[in-house]
Amino acid sequence: MTHDVLHALAGFAAGPVTTTGAVRLVTSLSALDWLSVGMAGRDEPVARILRQQVLDEGGTGDARLFGNGSAPARSAALVNGATSHALDYDDTHFAHIGHPSVAVFPAALAIGELRDLPLVEMLEAALIGMEVSIRVGLWLGRDHYQVGFHQTATAGTFGAAVAAGRLIGLQSDDMETLMGLSATRASGLKAQFGTMGKPYNAGMAASSGVECALLVQRGMDSNPAAFDGTFGFGATHHGATQAKDALDGLGERWLFESVSHKFHACCHGLHAALEAAREIDIAGPEVAEIAVRTHPRWMSVCNQPEPETGLGAKFSYRTVLAMRALGFDTARLDSYSAETCADMRLRSLRDHITVTADDSLTETQAVVSMLKRDGSRVEARHDLLAPLGLAQREERVRTKAAKLIGGQAADEAWSLLRQGGQSADFAALMVAP
Amino acid sequence: MTHDVLHALAGFAAGPVTTTGAVRLVTSLSALDWLSVGMAGRDEPVARILRQQVLDEGGTGDARLFGNGSAPARSAALVNGATSHALDYDDTHFAHIGHPSVAVFPAALAIGELRDLPLVEMLEAALIGMEVSIRVGLWLGRDHYQVGFHQTATAGTFGAAVAAGRLIGLQSDDMETLMGLSATRASGLKAQFGTMGKPYNAGMAASSGVECALLVQRGMDSNPAAFDGTFGFGATHHGATQAKDALDGLGERWLFESVSHKFHACCHGLHAALEAAREIDIAGPEVAEIAVRTHPRWMSVCNQPEPETGLGAKFSYRTVLAMRALGFDTARLDSYSAETCADMRLRSLRDHITVTADDSLTETQAVVSMLKRDGSRVEARHDLLAPLGLAQREERVRTKAAKLIGGQAADEAWSLLRQGGQSADFAALMVAP
Repeated sequence: MTHDVLHALAGFAAGPVTTTGAVRLVTSLSALDWLSVGMAGRDEPVARILRQQVLDEGGTGDARLFGNGSAPARSAALVNGATSHALDYDDTHFAHIGHPSVAVFPAALAIGELRDLPLVEMLEAALIGMEVSIRVGLWLGRDHYQVGFHQTATAGTFGAAVAAGRLIGLQSDDMETLMGLSATRASGLKAQFGTMGKPYNAGMAASSGVECALLVQRGMDSNPAAFDGTFGFGATHHGATQAKDALDGLGERWLFESVSHKFHACCHGLHAALEAAREIDIAGPEVAEIAVRTHPRWMSVCNQPEPETGLGAKFSYRTVLAMRALGFDTARLDSYSAETCADMRLRSLRDHITVTADDSLTETQAVVSMLKRDGSRVEARHDLLAPLGLAQREERVRTKAAKLIGGQAADEAWSLLRQGGQSADFAALMVAP
Repeated sequence: MTHDVLHALAGFAAGPVTTTGAVRLVTSLSALDWLSVGMAGRDEPVARILRQQVLDEGGTGDARLFGNGSAPARSAALVNGATSHALDYDDTHFAHIGHPSVAVFPAALAIGELRDLPLVEMLEAALIGMEVSIRVGLWLGRDHYQVGFHQTATAGTFGAAVAAGRLIGLQSDDMETLMGLSATRASGLKAQFGTMGKPYNAGMAASSGVECALLVQRGMDSNPAAFDGTFGFGATHHGATQAKDALDGLGERWLFESVSHKFHACCHGLHAALEAAREIDIAGPEVAEIAVRTHPRWMSVCNQPEPETGLGAKFSYRTVLAMRALGFDTARLDSYSAETCADMRLRSLRDHITVTADDSLTETQAVVSMLKRDGSRVEARHDLLAPLGLAQREERVRTKAAKLIGGQAADEAWSLLRQGGQSADFAALMVAP
C-alpha cells in the first residue's frame, strides 16, 4: 500500500497550482451558474426545511444562506449545498458522473466568508476542490457508482474538505489527516434520487467537508490510511481504486475544465435532443414531422408522450421539442407548467413528433430529423460531450443566469467574479433583492 | 424485496413497547455509566476540540455539553457522543460488536432537553434506539464489520435517529422515511481506531440521528428503500442482511439487556483475565507464580511485557494483574500511570507472571492459574459473555460511577434515573461541579 493517491491529492490540494485563463473562466462560469441555480432553488421545500432548521438553531452568522439569513459555516454549507442542487439544474462532470459545484462551492464560500478572504482565493480553492472531487471519483470508479453510491456526495465530501482546508491554511500533512477524517464522514446513496434526499446529499458533502477541515485545524487527528488503506474508504466503498486514472495529468491538466453546464430546466436525457434542435429551424410552417432518435435507456426515463403537468413536461421529448418550436424558453423554470401542457398549439404540434430508441447512439447523443412538407429532410445530431467554445459557454451561462436571477444581478455577480472583491461581496448576492 | 426489516424496526420504534423491570434497570445502569465515562472524558483532546468548535458557533443552548456550556441539539449530540467514547470505557454489545450508549444517549438526551421531556421517556426512547442499533447491526452482519465499518457509527446512526424520532413523536410511516434518510447520512470506518476519529464516529452517529429526525419532523422526504432496497444501505455497505437475526424476538426479548459494562479502565482484551483474578486471591505472600491463558488474537494487542507509561499499562496483562495484586484500582483512570509502572513492588511481581496464547479459548474468555509456594495450584476462568446478576451489575456500575464522578453525583444521578425527573435535571449533571 503506497498511498500514492493520498499523497498526490493532498500535496496538490495544499500546494501552489498553475492555472490557465480558460480554467479560471470556467470556474467563474460555474460559480455564476451555482449562484443562479441556488437562488432559483431557494424556495424549494428541501431548501426551506434545511434553512429553517439552521436558522432556528441560531449562532454566529459566519456565512450567508440562499434566500435569507446566515449561519455558522458548517450549517451554511449544509443549507447551500442542498439548495443549489434542489432543482437539479447545476453542472455535471461526466468523467465520474457527479455534480462538482454543489458540494464544493458551498464549503469554499462559507470558509471564504468566515475568514473574510478575497473572492479570487475562494475560486482557486473551489477549483482545486472540484478537481479533487472528480479525481477521487475516478479513483473510486464506476463500480462505486453502479453499486449505489452518489459520487456528488461521496467524492464531493473530499473535494469540499480540501477546498475548505486550503482556505484555512492546512499544509500537506494536515491535508492527509483531513482526507482520512473525511473518509469516515463521507456518505451518500443514489437510492435518494427522486426525493429531497438527493439535494440533501450535496449539502451533507459540503457540510462534512467544512466540519472535518475546521476540526483538523483545531488539532483533531485521524488515520490517513482511512482514505486508501486496506480498510479505507476505497476498499470499503466498492472503489476500483485506479491510481492511474486519478492521477493522470494532475497539476498539468484540469479535468474540471470539461464540466458540463445545463441549459435546459428539464431532465438531462432531453438535453442532447434540445441542443440538436438548436441547429435546425423546427419552428417553420413547412415542418411536416419531427423524429427524435435517442439512446434506449432514456425511453423509460423521459419519454412521457402527453404530460399534463410542469413536472411531466420536464420528462417529455415531444413536449420540450414542441415548446422550443413554439418559442417557450426551455431554460426558464416557469416555462414548464400545466398551462404550457394545455396549450392547443403545443398539443397539435406534439402529434407531429415521434421518438424512437437507437442503440447506435450513446447516452449523451441524440438526433433530430425534420421532414418538410416539400418532402425534403434536415437532420441534426448533438453530443453533450462535444466541447463548447469558451465564448459560447460564457454567453450561454450568463444568459441562463440572467433568466434565473435577473440581468442586473447576473452582471454584478460576473463583474465580481472576473474583477475581484471579497468572498462576502459575492455571498451578499445570495439574498434575494 | 419485502422490506420486512424496515417495516418491523420502524413499527417497533414508533409503537408501544413492553419493558421489564430488568431491562429498565439495565437501561438506567447504562445511562449512569454513560454519564460517568462522559464526565471522565470531558477534558480529553477530542472532547475539547469538538466542544470548542460548537461553542464558537454559538446558537440556542438547547442541550448541555459534557464539561460546560450548551448548544443546539445536533451539535450537542456530536460533542457528547465523541466525549463519552473518548476513553473507550463505555458499554459494549457483543452481538454486533458495537457501543450502543455513546451513539444513542447523546441523541435521546439532546431531544429530551430540547423538548423538555420527562427522563423516563428519554430512557425508554434510548432503550428502543439501542435495541434498534443492535438489531440493525445484526442485520448488517459480520461482513460489514470485518470489511471495515464501525458498527458503533453505522448501526448507531439508525439507533440514534429512531430514539430522537420517537421523542419528537414520529409515527411509523415517518419512522420509515427517517430510516431511509439516515441510510444516506450514516458512515464510519474502523480505520479510525487509535485516533480521535474513533470517538468522532460515535459523535457523528448521534448527531446524524438527531439531524435526520429533526428534518423528517419538518417534512423532509426520503426513499425508505434506501435502508434495505437493492441499492440501499445494506446492499452498498457489505451487509449480510439477515432478516431472521435482526427480527428474532423483536418486541418480546430485549437484546440490549445483555450489554456489557466495562469495569476496568484498560483494553477490553484484559478484562476477562482481570475478572478471573477477582475469583482467587492473587495478593497473598504465598503466590509463587501466576499464569494467564488468553485467546491468541490478544497477544499482539495487549501483551506489552514491561510498559513504562500509563497508556502502555492499559495494554499489558502482566501489569494490570500485578496492579490488582498490589491493590491498585483497575477501574480508576489515574491508576494507570508512569509512577505505577515504576513501582518496584509491581516490577518485581510482574516477573512472576506469564502470559500464553490458548486457542481453545474464545476472545471473551481467559484463565488465570496461580501456583502457590506449597506447590498447590488454584485456577479461575472467566467469560465476559457470562451474565452478571442484576444486583451485582448495579453494585459494580454504581461503584464505577462513584469512582469517576464522585459518590454524591453518582447517587444523585441514580436517584433521578430510578425515581424520575426531567431530562434537563439529568443533563444538569453533565457540568462539572
